Amino acid sequence: MQRCDELARVTSTPGRIERVYLSTEHARVNRLAAEWMREIGMTTRQDAAGNQVGRLAPSAGSATPRDDAPALMIGSHLDTVPDAGRFDGIVGVLMGLEVVRMLRSIRDDGLAVSPLPFALEVVAFSDEEGTRFGKALLGSSAVAGTWDDAWWSLADADGVTLRQAFLEFGLDPGRVGEAARRPDELVGYLEAHIEQGPELHRRGEALAVVSSIASARRFQLVVEGEARHAGGTPYDMRRDALLGASEIALAVERICRGEHHIIGTVGQLEAFPGAVNIVPGEAHLSVDLRGEFDGARDRVWDAISREVDEAMGRRGLRWHAREVHNAPAVFCAPLLQDVVRAGIRGPGSEEPPKIFSRAGHDAMSIGAITDVGMLFLRNPDGISHHPDEAVSAADVARGIEALAESVLHLAAEPR
Amino acid sequence: MQRCDELARVTSTPGRIERVYLSTEHARVNRLAAEWMREIGMTTRQDAAGNQVGRLAPSAGSATPRDDAPALMIGSHLDTVPDAGRFDGIVGVLMGLEVVRMLRSIRDDGLAVSPLPFALEVVAFSDEEGTRFGKALLGSSAVAGTWDDAWWSLADADGVTLRQAFLEFGLDPGRVGEAARRPDELVGYLEAHIEQGPELHRRGEALAVVSSIASARRFQLVVEGEARHAGGTPYDMRRDALLGASEIALAVERICRGEHHIIGTVGQLEAFPGAVNIVPGEAHLSVDLRGEFDGARDRVWDAISREVDEAMGRRGLRWHAREVHNAPAVFCAPLLQDVVRAGIRGPGSEEPPKIFSRAGHDAMSIGAITDVGMLFLRNPDGISHHPDEAVSAADVARGIEALAESVLHLAAEPR
Repeated sequence: MQRCDELARVTSTPGRIERVYLSTEHARVNRLAAEWMREIGMTTRQDAAGNQVGRLAPSAGSATPRDDAPALMIGSHLDTVPDAGRFDGIVGVLMGLEVVRMLRSIRDDGLAVSPLPFALEVVAFSDEEGTRFGKALLGSSAVAGTWDDAWWSLADADGVTLRQAFLEFGLDPGRVGEAARRPDELVGYLEAHIEQGPELHRRGEALAVVSSIASARRFQLVVEGEARHAGGTPYDMRRDALLGASEIALAVERICRGEHHIIGTVGQLEAFPGAVNIVPGEAHLSVDLRGEFDGARDRVWDAISREVDEAMGRRGLRWHAREVHNAPAVFCAPLLQDVVRAGIRGPGSEEPPKIFSRAGHDAMSIGAITDVGMLFLRNPDGISHHPDEAVSAADVARGIEALAESVLHLAAEPR
Repeated sequence: MQRCDELARVTSTPGRIERVYLSTEHARVNRLAAEWMREIGMTTRQDAAGNQVGRLAPSAGSATPRDDAPALMIGSHLDTVPDAGRFDGIVGVLMGLEVVRMLRSIRDDGLAVSPLPFALEVVAFSDEEGTRFGKALLGSSAVAGTWDDAWWSLADADGVTLRQAFLEFGLDPGRVGEAARRPDELVGYLEAHIEQGPELHRRGEALAVVSSIASARRFQLVVEGEARHAGGTPYDMRRDALLGASEIALAVERICRGEHHIIGTVGQLEAFPGAVNIVPGEAHLSVDLRGEFDGARDRVWDAISREVDEAMGRRGLRWHAREVHNAPAVFCAPLLQDVVRAGIRGPGSEEPPKIFSRAGHDAMSIGAITDVGMLFLRNPDGISHHPDEAVSAADVARGIEALAESVLHLAAEPR
């Protein structure tokens, strides 16, 4: 918890927490993480996409720890949204370090090794939130080998492109592919994360097994009407794009509320020209849809589209939607769900809850190259992406125990 | 019509029409107007608030035209909104000049005079739209003596205050009071203006008598909820300010539609923090309400407030409204309505339509010091504040005739 506070002080905005990809704050938290990794005997490197990686090779009975052994990767991210809390991502990285500290062996020659049949790695991903370049999961996409060269020209709010930012950070854009890991290098991936919702708090449980990470689609919608004088234009001659957009926002809520496990959000809405005395001729809005299953989510989008067609037609408005993000649901591997469940349960205790994540996580990217499993920690108010984000020290302690137990259960599995 | 085109070429934005208060474009159109005033024998001056004034004294049988005679003022404005049409305001000033050209007498000594029992003035008001400083009717407020010293610190988009802009234009802020006219200097005020709506076009009429200028109230509303993660926050824990604002926009439309002669517009709406994956915690929106009568307009605002209270309460949102503008309805004087009606009608023709103006005009300010009358010209599509704004040359010609006849009818009234 002290380290969460220490990382929170590394911010670009005094009084608030903000730490974005390829910033000086990013470099500073990587150095801190590397120091903490070395402190528990891990070898460290910053990879070609700015992710900070620590590794503990297995001794496997040999004199020198094997350096090419497959690794169990434990990870999460150290970047933040603007005006962030201090736990989202961060607590997962720090819990990984504590698990390594608990599990490692110190050999007679003083070298720390993994006593397990696999190496242990902790990865602090460099960009999960997408705050700076509008594209999330950049760090873990590089590790998964799913980096897209189209991203190089993405620009931040100051017009700095991702390519320029790489160079300024001291990274070589031409070598980003070197961050990619092969499936045969990995045993699997585990991630602990605070729940970004209230489910565990409501159920009175500290920890949960994650079954899957929600499928998500995002759209940018444009509604086109006609800008006219607010005084002189009677209602029957108006084609008011803002009223159309308002209907869409309310329709998204109404349709999603009627569906189990689907949630939709309009987070952005802007009217043009945006003058107090002009009927808006155009409106832009975002729609974010999440669900446990791709099919249900797609049916909801179809229902929204039909309703918007009808409403815009009634108002004489045109509309179109551009899909800007489409991530299929990522399912946690049954084996990793089992070991996390066993890790949480402990002897004699109840079956832990199993929930799906409506928020995206680095595990979504890493699912492309290895099995993933996740453990959620209770979030007292369910608040995240906000300074009030919280987790109790007692729950974190239980989480570290559970995560370490999960790793031991995995090590005991026949391979 | 050629002069409308000539003025349209005086713009700060190539390809579009934009001409704001105290700009170099303002100075240029004042010089053009002064030239056209002198061409028909008027004496000219730019007043202490940058309004361009032309005057033709009555000969009244004496050898020298009397310079202190009360004047009938004919006016409108030469400033524009951004991306404006070429007729709003402008055509009223130019019609005033044509009326003077038609009515003036040329004495034996070559001096042009008013043959009427009063002087004729044409005023090109310098700021009606309020584009630059966000405060409308600055020019005519100076003439009406209702200038408010609080306005000096209003700043434009570049941070230039009204006071600085006065100095840069070559005007002395300390002397703005000299632009004010006394009631005993004026016989009345007439203004011709394109209708900024479709009523005349719908009725198949070229011209109308204006009965009153709408009462208007404007509010800036703030809706406060809670910003939360869009994925993790279930609907029953959300307090989504944007959905609240959407309900308000639709309620304004629904309530005003149910009321005769009341129109309400939400022209601005913004959600904060405005991220695709965050439930909006705050929303700002504007409400503009106009009606022919203050009482009906105020009852509608009360009804909107009650409905918003209920809806925001249901959603767990707080809201408040700040009133930023409150202009009572201004009624055209019965005598001036009569002379305009007589001027339009001509012998043997039908009673012309009488409509109220939902848009604001310089006549609203001038109503504080003298009787006002207005004449509207047909606007083929009802579009204004837009490059497609139009009026036909034939209707303008009829309007000039009617306005000149109106002046003659006024001159014939017993005084």
